[in-house]
Parts: sequence; C-alpha cells; structure tokens
Amino acid sequence: MKKYIIGIDVGGTNVKLGLIDPRGEVVSRLSFSTRNFSATPEKLTAALCEAVGALLRKERVMKASVMGVGVGLPGLIDVKSGIVRVLPNIPGWKDVPLKKAMEKKLGLRVQLENDVNMITLGEWKYGAGKGLTDVLFMTLGTGVGAGLILNGNIYRGPGFAAGEIGHAPLNEKGPECGCGGWGCFERYVGNKELQRSAAKLFKARDISLEDVYQKAVEGKKKALKFWDMVGEQVGNGLIGPVNLLNPQAIVIGGGVSRSFAFLEPAIARTLRRRAMRTQAEMVRIIKALLDDDAGIIGAKVLICHEKN
Amino acid sequence: MKKYIIGIDVGGTNVKLGLIDPRGEVVSRLSFSTRNFSATPEKLTAALCEAVGALLRKERVMKASVMGVGVGLPGLIDVKSGIVRVLPNIPGWKDVPLKKAMEKKLGLRVQLENDVNMITLGEWKYGAGKGLTDVLFMTLGTGVGAGLILNGNIYRGPGFAAGEIGHAPLNEKGPECGCGGWGCFERYVGNKELQRSAAKLFKARDISLEDVYQKAVEGKKKALKFWDMVGEQVGNGLIGPVNLLNPQAIVIGGGVSRSFAFLEPAIARTLRRRAMRTQAEMVRIIKALLDDDAGIIGAKVLICHEKN
Repeated sequence: MKKYIIGIDVGGTNVKLGLIDPRGEVVSRLSFSTRNFSATPEKLTAALCEAVGALLRKERVMKASVMGVGVGLPGLIDVKSGIVRVLPNIPGWKDVPLKKAMEKKLGLRVQLENDVNMITLGEWKYGAGKGLTDVLFMTLGTGVGAGLILNGNIYRGPGFAAGEIGHAPLNEKGPECGCGGWGCFERYVGNKELQRSAAKLFKARDISLEDVYQKAVEGKKKALKFWDMVGEQVGNGLIGPVNLLNPQAIVIGGGVSRSFAFLEPAIARTLRRRAMRTQAEMVRIIKALLDDDAGIIGAKVLICHEKN
Repeated sequence: MKKYIIGIDVGGTNVKLGLIDPRGEVVSRLSFSTRNFSATPEKLTAALCEAVGALLRKERVMKASVMGVGVGLPGLIDVKSGIVRVLPNIPGWKDVPLKKAMEKKLGLRVQLENDVNMITLGEWKYGAGKGLTDVLFMTLGTGVGAGLILNGNIYRGPGFAAGEIGHAPLNEKGPECGCGGWGCFERYVGNKELQRSAAKLFKARDISLEDVYQKAVEGKKKALKFWDMVGEQVGNGLIGPVNLLNPQAIVIGGGVSRSFAFLEPAIARTLRRRAMRTQAEMVRIIKALLDDDAGIIGAKVLICHEKN
C-alpha cells in the first residue's frame, strides 16, 4: 500500500529530506550540504535522487509504498509544469525541468513547490493553520516572505510569484533595498536590519538576535523594548495585507519568530490601531508550530491534497 | 423562460436599477434619490421592491421571466446569509436581513453584494477583465477601494471585508486618515486630496479634476505633470498588492479613471521600477470598460455564475 511521502527542503546551505508517515509525521531524516553538489543543476538533481534512494534503503521502505516526492525550492517555481524558473541563491538554475528529470530517475511522482509555499502548506494542514481557510503565513528571517491560503486553497498567483510581502514600501523616503525599490518592509524587519539596530541599541557590535531574545526572557527592559519596536514594524507591514485580504490569521514563522511572545502584543496593538475595524477584529496572530519540519511536511499536502 | 436579471446599485445619493438581458446588456433603467427613502431601512427596502415592480411593468416583463435580483450596497455585506452588516453612509443599517425581506416581498431570488465587488464581477465577466483569472479592480474616486478576482473566483475574505486597498499606509509619518490610521493610500489619491493639490498647483481654488483632465487633453504641461504625479502615487500604492498577489491585471475604474490615459504611463513606470520583477512583467494596467453600468451588470454574474 502506498502510504509514505518524501519531503525535500532544498536550501541555499543544506538539503533536508524527511520520510513522512500517514499521520503527517517525519519518521526519518537525512541531509547534505547543498554546496557539495551545487556546481550544476545536473549534479544537484542526481544528489537529490540518490538521497531519496538512501533514505528509503535506510528505512527499508519499498518505492511501491511511496505516494510521491514533494520538493521545496528557494526560488520561482512553475508548479504546473514542474520547471524551476530561477533559484537566486543557487547558480545555474534557469528553466530546469526538475520534476521530469526526477520522475524519470526515481520512477516516483514528484511535485515541485516554492519553499515558502511548502512551509505554508505544512503549517496549514498539520500546524498552526489547521482548520482555517484564509491565512497569511509569514517567515521572518534574513528574508521576509509569505505564503497565502485563500478560500481554502493555496494561492500562488498566475506567475507563481504571489506572497512577496517583504517588498511593499512602508515609507516614501525609506532606505534602498536589494530588490531595486526603497523603504521595503524587509528593510525594516529583515535579520540584517534587526541585527544592526540591536547593535546600536545595546552598543555592542557582536550582539546576536538570540542574545536579545535571552535578555527579553530574563525581563531586561531594553530587550523587551527592542522586540516591541520590531513588533510594531511587523504590524505596520501587515496593515496593507490584512486590509486587502481580511485573513482569519497571520501565522509567523522563521528565525525571528523565536521571539514571538515578545513581538505579538505590539503586532496586535498596531493592527488594532491602524488596520480597518472588521479586519482587525477578525485577524489572530499565531506562532508557527512546525519549525524546520514545515518545509518537509508540506510535501504531504502537496502530494495528497493538491491536484496539479 | 427565465432570462432577465435585475441589477440594483444602491449608492449614498442615488439608487439605480437596470434590466439585464441574456447578452449581459442593460436594456432598461430606472433610478431614484436615496435620500427620499433613507429614513429607515424598511422605507428603503420598500422603495427597492416597488422600483423592481415599476421596472418590470415598464418593460412588460413578467416576474416568471426573471432569474433573480442582484443588489450592490455601499458597505459591509454578509453575502452568504444576505444580511447588510453596516452601510457607513446610510443611517440605520445595522444587521438588516435585506435578502430575506426582498425575497418575501418580491417572490424572486435576491443576492446581495458589496458595491465594489459588484463592479468587480461586472467588469470581470462583461468588461475589462474578460477571460482573466487573477485581477485587482480598483475604484479611484472619493474613496479608493478594490475588488479581487483570484484563482478565477471573487475573493471576499472570511469577514466579507477584503479589497480595502485604500487604507494601506504608504508613509510612516503621513497625514491622518478618517479610518483612524495615517499615511493611507486614500489620503494621497482620494478625490479630496487630488482636488486640494490641483487647487494648489494651479493656484485656483475652484478648479475641478474635470478641468485638469480637459487641460491635459489640450496638452497643457502643468496638467500632464499633475496626472503624472497622481499616477506615480497610484503606482506606489499598487506595489504592495501587486507583489503580494501577482495579478495578471489591475483594472482601474471610478471617476478619476476618466484621466486613465494620462495616469497609466506613470503607474506602469512606477511598478516597473519598484515592484518585484516577475510581478511587474506580468501585470497589465487596464481601464475599466463599463463605467456606471458595471455595478448593475455585476448582478448577472452574481445570479448566474456564483453559488451562494
């Protein structure tokens, strides 16, 4: 009986694989460094397929019991045709028909997806978004991105590029951004900027966001103030999407969401104050539940629930 | 045979009715002043029903040939239960079960909808959005609102409040807005603000936007520059929604869209410069086609295509 699914989370640094059981739990893992195989798309493709084989052998699972493989990739993915349009942080990936190549090598059904959408699918069905129909999943880390569940379905946009919440301008005269714009949301709450402002506030060049989190746990006022300010900026960036989409919830994941408890009051306060009333009254701010596993577990949703 | 549909566009000033034929064309009209009947919801409801009867008698159409009545209202409408939650500009409307009341009086199927969504439905199926699956319809007038077609369906949001594009903040320190926020998109491109800035630019207190449009038609530089500046602000407000939703098109209607030809180049330029590449390359900026009729023709889509 086909009951297992394999989830693959391709990152710029590591590739993580997981064997997912029928309950949606990751029962076995495997990972390797992306760099060792990133010379060409062919090498990485071969490495992905070999890792799938290794994971199955390790767990003594037959291919015949595998429903399919879901692959999340950090870039623009044509989900319908299974083509990787571009991966900004892994060189050489331009219009690569990865789905076809993997299916041929593996003899298994393969579905591709953008990494943030993969996390969105995982959190939606097995994490913080269970039972909801309209949710914005935001990742707060080096980049600030989002995945959208609308009307009970993932919304990818006709160009598969929906969810780019990080590059909405919050200020006419804001700082320049790598995207070519200026005053972008990400320029206020991306990791780089947060580290810069933490260093300034604490007058300590090497302070990490983890340090500031620890200080907040200890109740240090300056750290609590820092996260409150960050929460207010996050809230500011959410006003537009919350007004536009009227979601039931915002689910927040990514590295910075570690400090969720210190961010949430300021986010909620800002939305209550500045978003439209109906929208502000409806939207809940929730912490992502699955951490790193969301990107793997999403594969189960992709293979079982989505029809592509 | 049931083939006609009646569309009703309830505005703060006028109520307009139209008899729509099977081709989606308005073949007969009728209107009355909202104020004369706005003392209570009961009076306006009775007036709506009487006007439906009058329109049918005028055209000698039997109720038996009418598929249904679609009513667009300027406020928050629970489309599923047919309840008018609130109409900000018509006093007394709070949780009024208008669908039920009208169906009982008329003996016809009645569907309610928010007025901007009604326009969106009309433009989508019979106007500028024909054949598209993912479109943002924006009205530029006293208010700045939007309706969303996503994945080939209207997206209303779980609280029926989606589309509020006008109250996304574009500036940390922008002017205060009636919504309680500040720096809102509407505060930059709403009619009031445009009139104020036209008066300033032309040093003429009574200049109308229609005058500035005429001057632009005549090729006057100052007027062309005015609309170019407005287009840039409209473009700025669209960056966030375009990045987030990756739509195929933005359709622009409302009074200000009269000057579409002078606005469009600046909108397109701003999006090319500041929106994400995939999104900017895909999105087209289109003028609404149906003018005032969109709010009536939308009734046909509501009754024929939507299942509520």
